[in-house]
Amino acid sequence: MAGDTFYKEIRAAGGAYKWHCDGAWRESTSGKTVGVSNPATRAREYEVQACTQAEVDEAFAAAKAAQKGWARTPLWQRAALLHKVAALMRDHAQPMADCLVKEIAKPSKDALSEVIRSADLIDYTAEEGLRALGEGALLTSDSFPGQTRNKLCLVSKVPLGVVLAIPPFNYPVNLAVSKLAPALMAGNAVVLKPPSQGVVAGSHMLQCFVKAGLPKGLVNMVTGKGSEIGDYLTGHPAVNCISFTGGDTGIAISRKAGMVPMQMELGGKDACIVCSDADIDLAAKAVLKGGFSYSGQRCTAVKLVLVVKEVADALAAKVAAGVEKLRVGMPEDDCDITPVVSESSANFIEGLVEDARQKGAKFLTPYRREGNLIWPTLLDHVTPEMRIAWEEPFGPVVPIMRVASADEAVAHCNANNLALQGCVFTRDINKAIAISDAMETGTVQINAAPARGPDHFPFQGFRDSGIGSQGIRNSLAMMVKTKSTVVNLDKDSYASG
Amino acid sequence: MAGDTFYKEIRAAGGAYKWHCDGAWRESTSGKTVGVSNPATRAREYEVQACTQAEVDEAFAAAKAAQKGWARTPLWQRAALLHKVAALMRDHAQPMADCLVKEIAKPSKDALSEVIRSADLIDYTAEEGLRALGEGALLTSDSFPGQTRNKLCLVSKVPLGVVLAIPPFNYPVNLAVSKLAPALMAGNAVVLKPPSQGVVAGSHMLQCFVKAGLPKGLVNMVTGKGSEIGDYLTGHPAVNCISFTGGDTGIAISRKAGMVPMQMELGGKDACIVCSDADIDLAAKAVLKGGFSYSGQRCTAVKLVLVVKEVADALAAKVAAGVEKLRVGMPEDDCDITPVVSESSANFIEGLVEDARQKGAKFLTPYRREGNLIWPTLLDHVTPEMRIAWEEPFGPVVPIMRVASADEAVAHCNANNLALQGCVFTRDINKAIAISDAMETGTVQINAAPARGPDHFPFQGFRDSGIGSQGIRNSLAMMVKTKSTVVNLDKDSYASG
Amino acid sequence: MAGDTFYKEIRAAGGAYKWHCDGAWRESTSGKTVGVSNPATRAREYEVQACTQAEVDEAFAAAKAAQKGWARTPLWQRAALLHKVAALMRDHAQPMADCLVKEIAKPSKDALSEVIRSADLIDYTAEEGLRALGEGALLTSDSFPGQTRNKLCLVSKVPLGVVLAIPPFNYPVNLAVSKLAPALMAGNAVVLKPPSQGVVAGSHMLQCFVKAGLPKGLVNMVTGKGSEIGDYLTGHPAVNCISFTGGDTGIAISRKAGMVPMQMELGGKDACIVCSDADIDLAAKAVLKGGFSYSGQRCTAVKLVLVVKEVADALAAKVAAGVEKLRVGMPEDDCDITPVVSESSANFIEGLVEDARQKGAKFLTPYRREGNLIWPTLLDHVTPEMRIAWEEPFGPVVPIMRVASADEAVAHCNANNLALQGCVFTRDINKAIAISDAMETGTVQINAAPARGPDHFPFQGFRDSGIGSQGIRNSLAMMVKTKSTVVNLDKDSYASG
Amino acid sequence: MAGDTFYKEIRAAGGAYKWHCDGAWRESTSGKTVGVSNPATRAREYEVQACTQAEVDEAFAAAKAAQKGWARTPLWQRAALLHKVAALMRDHAQPMADCLVKEIAKPSKDALSEVIRSADLIDYTAEEGLRALGEGALLTSDSFPGQTRNKLCLVSKVPLGVVLAIPPFNYPVNLAVSKLAPALMAGNAVVLKPPSQGVVAGSHMLQCFVKAGLPKGLVNMVTGKGSEIGDYLTGHPAVNCISFTGGDTGIAISRKAGMVPMQMELGGKDACIVCSDADIDLAAKAVLKGGFSYSGQRCTAVKLVLVVKEVADALAAKVAAGVEKLRVGMPEDDCDITPVVSESSANFIEGLVEDARQKGAKFLTPYRREGNLIWPTLLDHVTPEMRIAWEEPFGPVVPIMRVASADEAVAHCNANNLALQGCVFTRDINKAIAISDAMETGTVQINAAPARGPDHFPFQGFRDSGIGSQGIRNSLAMMVKTKSTVVNLDKDSYASG
Repeated sequence: MAGDTFYKEIRAAGGAYKWHCDGAWRESTSGKTVGVSNPATRAREYEVQACTQAEVDEAFAAAKAAQKGWARTPLWQRAALLHKVAALMRDHAQPMADCLVKEIAKPSKDALSEVIRSADLIDYTAEEGLRALGEGALLTSDSFPGQTRNKLCLVSKVPLGVVLAIPPFNYPVNLAVSKLAPALMAGNAVVLKPPSQGVVAGSHMLQCFVKAGLPKGLVNMVTGKGSEIGDYLTGHPAVNCISFTGGDTGIAISRKAGMVPMQMELGGKDACIVCSDADIDLAAKAVLKGGFSYSGQRCTAVKLVLVVKEVADALAAKVAAGVEKLRVGMPEDDCDITPVVSESSANFIEGLVEDARQKGAKFLTPYRREGNLIWPTLLDHVTPEMRIAWEEPFGPVVPIMRVASADEAVAHCNANNLALQGCVFTRDINKAIAISDAMETGTVQINAAPARGPDHFPFQGFRDSGIGSQGIRNSLAMMVKTKSTVVNLDKDSYASG
Repeated sequence: MAGDTFYKEIRAAGGAYKWHCDGAWRESTSGKTVGVSNPATRAREYEVQACTQAEVDEAFAAAKAAQKGWARTPLWQRAALLHKVAALMRDHAQPMADCLVKEIAKPSKDALSEVIRSADLIDYTAEEGLRALGEGALLTSDSFPGQTRNKLCLVSKVPLGVVLAIPPFNYPVNLAVSKLAPALMAGNAVVLKPPSQGVVAGSHMLQCFVKAGLPKGLVNMVTGKGSEIGDYLTGHPAVNCISFTGGDTGIAISRKAGMVPMQMELGGKDACIVCSDADIDLAAKAVLKGGFSYSGQRCTAVKLVLVVKEVADALAAKVAAGVEKLRVGMPEDDCDITPVVSESSANFIEGLVEDARQKGAKFLTPYRREGNLIWPTLLDHVTPEMRIAWEEPFGPVVPIMRVASADEAVAHCNANNLALQGCVFTRDINKAIAISDAMETGTVQINAAPARGPDHFPFQGFRDSGIGSQGIRNSLAMMVKTKSTVVNLDKDSYASG
Repeated sequence: MAGDTFYKEIRAAGGAYKWHCDGAWRESTSGKTVGVSNPATRAREYEVQACTQAEVDEAFAAAKAAQKGWARTPLWQRAALLHKVAALMRDHAQPMADCLVKEIAKPSKDALSEVIRSADLIDYTAEEGLRALGEGALLTSDSFPGQTRNKLCLVSKVPLGVVLAIPPFNYPVNLAVSKLAPALMAGNAVVLKPPSQGVVAGSHMLQCFVKAGLPKGLVNMVTGKGSEIGDYLTGHPAVNCISFTGGDTGIAISRKAGMVPMQMELGGKDACIVCSDADIDLAAKAVLKGGFSYSGQRCTAVKLVLVVKEVADALAAKVAAGVEKLRVGMPEDDCDITPVVSESSANFIEGLVEDARQKGAKFLTPYRREGNLIWPTLLDHVTPEMRIAWEEPFGPVVPIMRVASADEAVAHCNANNLALQGCVFTRDINKAIAISDAMETGTVQINAAPARGPDHFPFQGFRDSGIGSQGIRNSLAMMVKTKSTVVNLDKDSYASG
Repeated sequence: MAGDTFYKEIRAAGGAYKWHCDGAWRESTSGKTVGVSNPATRAREYEVQACTQAEVDEAFAAAKAAQKGWARTPLWQRAALLHKVAALMRDHAQPMADCLVKEIAKPSKDALSEVIRSADLIDYTAEEGLRALGEGALLTSDSFPGQTRNKLCLVSKVPLGVVLAIPPFNYPVNLAVSKLAPALMAGNAVVLKPPSQGVVAGSHMLQCFVKAGLPKGLVNMVTGKGSEIGDYLTGHPAVNCISFTGGDTGIAISRKAGMVPMQMELGGKDACIVCSDADIDLAAKAVLKGGFSYSGQRCTAVKLVLVVKEVADALAAKVAAGVEKLRVGMPEDDCDITPVVSESSANFIEGLVEDARQKGAKFLTPYRREGNLIWPTLLDHVTPEMRIAWEEPFGPVVPIMRVASADEAVAHCNANNLALQGCVFTRDINKAIAISDAMETGTVQINAAPARGPDHFPFQGFRDSGIGSQGIRNSLAMMVKTKSTVVNLDKDSYASG
């Protein structure tokens, strides 16, 4: 099935991965490459092109030119292309998954499932867009006082133009297609800037689009150092939309962007509130899975447990028991806990842990680190004075804070500028809704861990966690603008029957 | 405010109330009248016209003629008329409420509030219709495989024509306007057949439409014996829609009607399931109010309590305590329990009570009757063998059936052909949703008694309880049909921006 | 690809086609079969089972039982099944198309395209249903005066139960799947009664569902004489919905049905209005194709041309020239004009033609008939006195009526009880909309012939042409009912952020 | 009706108008005021407070505090308050209109109608918001592959927080309420910065809100020099949304704003394309009214006529004839053409006219100016070399450019960065849609001049003309964000019926 030749052209003779512009895989005129380290081995695993600003210009020019024709392509043909992409991704999933293992140390099964889930997302987006974009509104003038029905307003959704897509390292395939698929269905062209780690998986993903017969120039991918081309990309005059997932950089981007629609998902400090009447087994499982999956490197990871005192001991014990069973090691072995993405990330996590230790946190499991590999760490009796009560480790460390009441827990959450998701465990229907209402985060999960999916649900962060709403439907809606055509008639129009 | 003269013209010199056709209040050419008894005094309170079949024809002819122009009236003007009707109803509410007291023995405060709530409903419907009917859909052809975007489909909602509105005795004002207001906003004309009891209140209501400046012929009201003109009305070839609320008659009507959209709300046997973890105080209050308001003569009255054994004694005791405090007497005195609408109704109720007594039901409060006045009766230990476990008394009698589990309760509900609403009391979020899902009724209330309102919520019965969905929005949607205009263009149409 | 064995089991040892019940292809216990004539040869082509009323009961019982589990099947699984059906239909299209050639004399290419288009429709319906049925509404109480926000109303769409699907002879595959696919996606079971001609194509179609892994009992097919089981089917107490396409029978069905949602598409007398400023070439092509495709045996065939005098000669000449080029002959040879479905149909057509001849119509092409084969006939100077000005021939005969104005044309259309579609040819935007508004038919095509598709557009007839609206989305909407769950909270619910 | 006392408190003892904060009309602690000139007399007409940055802080603090409670106010109560505001505006319209006459030289009748139209807009927004915000979505998980239906996603719309509203001088009342009304209905608080000219009319408007019983702090108004508090306002950390109408400043604002939803309507260069088949009378009237109403100081004024050569002479002659009849003079006399808003504006207009004169434009009516009063000027034979072919005069000057074809006209429009509206005159349905599709502006009017209203239609500019979409519904949608609550159940949830 797979095919040695399928991905062949994305790599230069010397082994470095190419960038993609106007339908062609190219080497940069800079003559330079940037290395990609393997988080597990800390060795250089790949080389990618260090694109120049002139090449960024080329990418935008190609996108802008390609978009005109694509915007005039029937919706079902756009969908058909995306279905073909999805099929190719399934057929050629393993090499792409292998990159995820090597670039971002994702456990091998998770890596494969990211690719498959991405293909599902593409298929779903294709069919959703087919419908959402094939329907507008028809408004009549006579709803408004003083008007007669002599105006018919035809409201359409038109493409924005060129979308700049910037996915993060932790889901470099899935969070790329979650931007590309709606952008394309909506009739836009794309310039893609993959993350530094995950860029090679991203190249593989793009090849599936190319092989599916993507019109040349419709999706272009530039690679290189963020410090050299980052600002140039986000401030480029040809950008008509920015879809960004990542960290604080997003705030800086938003401050510089002009009248450009933005969809941003930045950090999160997703809290798990556990009430006294909660199903403790259920809550413990959610904390374990929610906190430690992919070593906590997920925007929707459980990053703080807020448990009411009465049940804190029971919960902590159950979670700790689970943590001890987690398998720690290499992604190739599909371990539960694998090295975090970089040394700087590991150092940052360690900083949070040490701060907590000094301020009196109780370690329910011992902290241990080898290189970028950090053993899963469960901290209890965390207090608001500790940094880890507020900051997100993006690593396998879960802090437990004991609170007097759910109200106290909610107040703590709402005091944080990060406001992506949260969850609450309670059996009581009144309490469940009341706490969800009170938590000022984009989403609240009742009786389950925070989660991005299913992908057709809306997904958004408040305050410093983002702007706009994602999820398949919302991303499609975000990547179009409204255009109205008003037909002014010489007499009133009352359709009769 | 009220005004002696406002309602003057609706009554003939001899005192009988007139019927309304083509803008005029008239006496019937039959020369006959039909009497309306006061349920409390059992004396004749009013006389109304006994219309002939020829007069029914006139009503439909007037409606058909008036509808053409009305359908070409701007939406905001339709709304403005309805707002004026609502204002007049509020200004002239008391005489209308007085009729409800005398015709259907509705407690005086409830009578007045029925009128006011009706005015609110009219206002809400006006604004809802303004919006719902001023918007259609715009579909493009290129969503479907093989098509290009050369067809624009403009989807409009057009009036049905003449709506036959038949409200029931228990809310002769409210359930009339809940049909008239959407029918009119949607551009239809109406022939109204008020209930035998409540017809005079209905005449008063109609006068508010007339005085507001309703185009003549747009709403016509025929009165008389159902046995003489009932079938003639419902089978009339000019009928384009039937909106009926009432009892079994509805099924017979539906069997004879042709290709006519129908909105029917017939009987209900609304059950109240009380789980072991329920808030018993809350449940008891709901049973008391839900079961005995307006002496149980409500389609959404609690007509059966299904309580799990563990909490049955507690619930029964609390409800019984409440029943004892209910004030029994005359509607003019605003008593809680007033005479039921007719002697035949009282006899039917008594039949159910006696059947239950013979089969061993335990009377938590004693059964007592004087004329049409029946004291509130709470029966416990009701079993499936008793008729009252299945039939609706439409009177102040509430049966309690003890069940082993919520599942048993649900099974009992689902075995009944009446399937309007139901309710469940439980604190548990999983149980609440699961029981609501399992109950095969049009609506399930979680932790409150069944209720028609708020009036913008959908409202519908399953199986023998009806067809179609009501509530303001759904009634508006039901009273129009879809018309499409397809613009076939000479080249593809891609709105660009 | 096709496969000899794929369809093997649908036929009995003796060669007669079986009926289908509860997952099995069966011979009827009646021991009788009904013959299917080939319209071209007028010989018996097939035998099908003459099912008994007891077998009808079995079919409904199987459907009712199967529906419960199916209604609890995830939407994506329902869609996956339908996608598999569509794939099988494409893979095994030719044998099914061959039946259409032999049973209903459909030209061979059209026969194949009916099958393929049906597969597209199934795919589209699957994805549409996935979305439409996975979304409900969430209403809050505080929109209505006097309420606080303590009630959340969750509005869901639930299946109706068992749908009785009765497609017509002219599209026995396509108009069967346009009922089956939405019925199934919406969680219903189906009892299918195929048309007398087309029943064998229908059996082939059903086999694609069976082979795709349809749960047993979910779709059942009864065959036999309409006179023996027709009324029994349509009046069956287990019917929860009737979706019927056909002729006048529909009106009779509607008169007997009870509180059952109905979707009916009956006859049409689709007019083509040609204005003086029309593109005459375009109009002539539309009349030719619209009037003579599949020998005029289409509900949306052009059945009357209403042309303003100034351009009547030009139009008539162009259409006549086109008619002369039509190839007349056998469906196997893919001729344009093939034998009509039955001798009685041919006789009826001839009756209309002779009536027109006697009343002075001018034959632009000569009338000729051999058996069921009728040569394409273009009549000019048709007048309102002629039956063909009002009745639908359902054959290759197109009448032209010359009118003084578009208004006169519209008035003629609106005087007909048949009111499916219509079309108007004009270049003028004001006139186009005004005429479309004035035509009281379910759809009006501007500058193209009437057409059912694209299949996601709404499709409906007014007056005697039907009730309800079809098209993929509308059919899905029609095959569910509204259920609401109201969560009553102990305090107001304001989601905050 | 009006009332001397109604507006009394908005003015300080010394005569200067106050600013408004936390429910009180105040004098600024700066002790300074800013003067407002009368465009007609060029004398100082009013004085307003020169607020300090500390006062801006106070305004935001008051807004933030007030918003919490307002967000928990039932929708119908919010609507009731707005209805009261509208009633007060109608009752006290004249003094507000008088300000418009004196501050911005709006003709007296137009001034009054701006106020009345604003009251209508408020009423409409109240009822629209009641509905739009009382409905969310209910999504089930089983639409997505691999999921079961165990998750219910409740999607709500929650307020953004504090909206910064900045209306422009030309409609200081109407474009203020078009921001305030949706902001308030959606549960937000507002800080209002009125334009320098129009600020006193704005104060009057705000008083209607205050007198209606607006909770204190919910709307606050700061006045003063843009150069001192402008940037401070738009960059304030408490801003959660910016709704701005005005000129280029908007682009600068957008470049500095962070992750804040923005709704911006900036300049326009609305073109009127006249095709050879157009109704020239209709087009001429539209150019006349569209170009010269309120002396061209409207974002949707016709700012360029692009007429195909064949009909250019005819059109120019008709428009010129109309221009000659326009009454030029003072706003108090309700003249058609009144002084433009400021001397700098008049100078700018003159610059464009002189540039055109030098480059050879033909003056169909002579240019004349007295102070800020500019006589209506119609320029013909304008060429792309002239500035007036690209820039918007915002004065009573209309340029006519003759083009070889509609395509040339469209190309000229699309080459301009200003892209608000446009219009096209043609009778041909194909051409009308094709040109509308091709014009890359937010709205295209077919056969009528550009127009903002009716106010429930969407209204938006592309490129440098803005971001986001306005109109009542779209503004409401823009002033909320999505919040989702996911109920995770212990078993699948299939509502049954």
